[in-house]
Amino acid sequence: MAFINENYLKLKAGYLFPEIGRRVREFAAAYPDKDIIRMGIGDVTQPLTPTILKAFHDGVEELGNKNTFKGYGPEQGYDFLREAIALNDYQQRGVEISADEIFVSDGSKCDTGNIQEIFGDKNIIAICDPVYPVYADTTVMSGKTGECQSNGYFDNIVYMPCNEANGFIPELPVTRPDLIFLCFPNNPTGTVATRAILKTWVDYAIANKSIILYDAAYEAYITDDSIPHSIFEIEGARNVAIEFRSFSKTAGFTGTRCAFTVIPNELFAYDEQGNQVAVKPLWMRRHTTKFNGVSYPVQKAAAAIYSDEGKKEIKGLIRYYLENARLIRESLTEAGYTVFGGINAPYVWVKTKNNLTSWEFFDKLLNETNVVGTPGSGFGPSGEGYFRFSAFADRDKVIKAMERIKNISY
Amino acid sequence: MAFINENYLKLKAGYLFPEIGRRVREFAAAYPDKDIIRMGIGDVTQPLTPTILKAFHDGVEELGNKNTFKGYGPEQGYDFLREAIALNDYQQRGVEISADEIFVSDGSKCDTGNIQEIFGDKNIIAICDPVYPVYADTTVMSGKTGECQSNGYFDNIVYMPCNEANGFIPELPVTRPDLIFLCFPNNPTGTVATRAILKTWVDYAIANKSIILYDAAYEAYITDDSIPHSIFEIEGARNVAIEFRSFSKTAGFTGTRCAFTVIPNELFAYDEQGNQVAVKPLWMRRHTTKFNGVSYPVQKAAAAIYSDEGKKEIKGLIRYYLENARLIRESLTEAGYTVFGGINAPYVWVKTKNNLTSWEFFDKLLNETNVVGTPGSGFGPSGEGYFRFSAFADRDKVIKAMERIKNISY
Repeated sequence: MAFINENYLKLKAGYLFPEIGRRVREFAAAYPDKDIIRMGIGDVTQPLTPTILKAFHDGVEELGNKNTFKGYGPEQGYDFLREAIALNDYQQRGVEISADEIFVSDGSKCDTGNIQEIFGDKNIIAICDPVYPVYADTTVMSGKTGECQSNGYFDNIVYMPCNEANGFIPELPVTRPDLIFLCFPNNPTGTVATRAILKTWVDYAIANKSIILYDAAYEAYITDDSIPHSIFEIEGARNVAIEFRSFSKTAGFTGTRCAFTVIPNELFAYDEQGNQVAVKPLWMRRHTTKFNGVSYPVQKAAAAIYSDEGKKEIKGLIRYYLENARLIRESLTEAGYTVFGGINAPYVWVKTKNNLTSWEFFDKLLNETNVVGTPGSGFGPSGEGYFRFSAFADRDKVIKAMERIKNISY
Repeated sequence: MAFINENYLKLKAGYLFPEIGRRVREFAAAYPDKDIIRMGIGDVTQPLTPTILKAFHDGVEELGNKNTFKGYGPEQGYDFLREAIALNDYQQRGVEISADEIFVSDGSKCDTGNIQEIFGDKNIIAICDPVYPVYADTTVMSGKTGECQSNGYFDNIVYMPCNEANGFIPELPVTRPDLIFLCFPNNPTGTVATRAILKTWVDYAIANKSIILYDAAYEAYITDDSIPHSIFEIEGARNVAIEFRSFSKTAGFTGTRCAFTVIPNELFAYDEQGNQVAVKPLWMRRHTTKFNGVSYPVQKAAAAIYSDEGKKEIKGLIRYYLENARLIRESLTEAGYTVFGGINAPYVWVKTKNNLTSWEFFDKLLNETNVVGTPGSGFGPSGEGYFRFSAFADRDKVIKAMERIKNISY
């Protein structure tokens, strides 16, 4: 008799984005002539830039020619891409990361979920609240949690509330976790972590033999030179951290699919007898056994991001979205909202007025302005009363949306 | 303290293909002027065909244009691809499979490994011996096995020996498994399963409430009209089977990366109280939570396989490789070897002469003819004394390799 993985039954049925989709569809059906502006899902809208596009085409063309055809590539990614990453994202910033510590994949969503597999069920996981839902959901799937409580918290997960009082920076948890998910620049709050904050976390992880799972998917949006782009800029991090990076938001790759994970050679976890076991070979085994590499033309396109022209072009993309973020921040502030994030991040985190719940504000916004955003409570109970605007929209739509929001009646 | 998944420690260090690579590299270093012919790894060599290539380029071009740009797509794959698959691979063959039962992914290696996650640890898995190593390795990783024995068998896996005596078709196991991996046309033996054989397995699965995990990655190589291409051609299979398909060997996609998994709506597994739980929603949850869809241009390229021109072109590719298989079969038979497979499959399974072990034959072949093949024992103990030749090489190399093998001295 085939048995299911019962941990899946613990998951809540309603995922945030499908529920948003449902409400928007219903609204659109009821009011077909309304001009709906979508600033909900964090998906990019601007096309691939010319240099990246050309490399993508070139990669495709190679597959059509007998002499340049590529079959299976290395599961960890081609050297040309891993070396470009190591050089440009790390070594040129003075960070010690080598190509053999980099694993190219088809997405950070996959990586942050799959990484759970190489760690045992008895690990206690810490996650921020509010947070990207995938960390918690994949923790549940992997059997590391108990049941879901009425507030949406799962037993055996250490939740770290992030709120106005702590500046949306989690405090060191009292219950010591074994694996700690951190994401900076943060999704959904747009907060960044200073060097001093990250140092506190690295020291905490060293003291507790914990591992930090550091999601840096939005590092390209850091505008303040004093903010670290990588956890590995912090002394000691090579012993306690794994970093996840993605080209999705850096270069408009949400539909192209390419990302990477960095696991330093000095990172160790433990077996039940307390013996040290190197983590990189475990991930290598997982990656080579359950994955077969990223499409060759996609890797060519990703490598073009690191060319001189490519760098210039993606800076333009990021400037575009950051200018959207500035417009959102300033317009909402002007309209009397309390606003966070959106300076070193593509997300603006807004406090609702009149103590509206996140979903009440969602419905009000949809009905009165036809603008779609993301209810903060969908990211966890501490997000209640907040709302996320994504800066990944077209400029004219951002301007129009902000105009409409100014005129909301209370 | 971060704990590892100790199941990974049960895995054997040496994976088959790295060991082949090591021996070939050493040989090449010692004899740099030798013309080595590789027929080991089952990787295609012929370029993408024109229609597929054009669709791939068109998909890339869409990403470079503001009006046609695509961000995140549906995790399960775009409707245009899922509908083309359902229509062409199933409905037009009289098989009842709908687009909503199809999950597009980046590879069957990923899918056959990841599928384990939705099933509980207490399931007993059955696999053939010899077999594609990923089934066993991912079973071990998922915690469903005991330790590895000296013969390479893991405790708690039901092994089904496939040998000359049973025509390389597994017999129904005495210990009843919960999940049964089957692969036809078979890798590595090149055997196919008749309708009657598959019916026996479907009936056995129904009787035992087991689920068949059916790997049909090589179905495009079936030349005999009486052989089923899909497990779903068998009555009752919709209640007991999951099917894995890939474009890798069908259309030369090993470096392009696209595959799909079919889970019928009527497939159920059980919770520990014996209640039925539908399997498709579990996989949907896994697929949408831990995966973010296949690159858009890759899906466009895959859909072009189903156009009239695309169909003609990939038929040409498959004919090319099957002609290689015929040459290998006939040459080796002529040279006095006992040969299996290679008629409805791209693999030829050869018995060594003089009772050489698989690795002895590998070394002899490499040293005397500079031809690289795959030792059968690498696929499991029942593969000892056998050897796999892949037909995915260039024609001129196949001819040259067969000429050289004729002249091996014993």
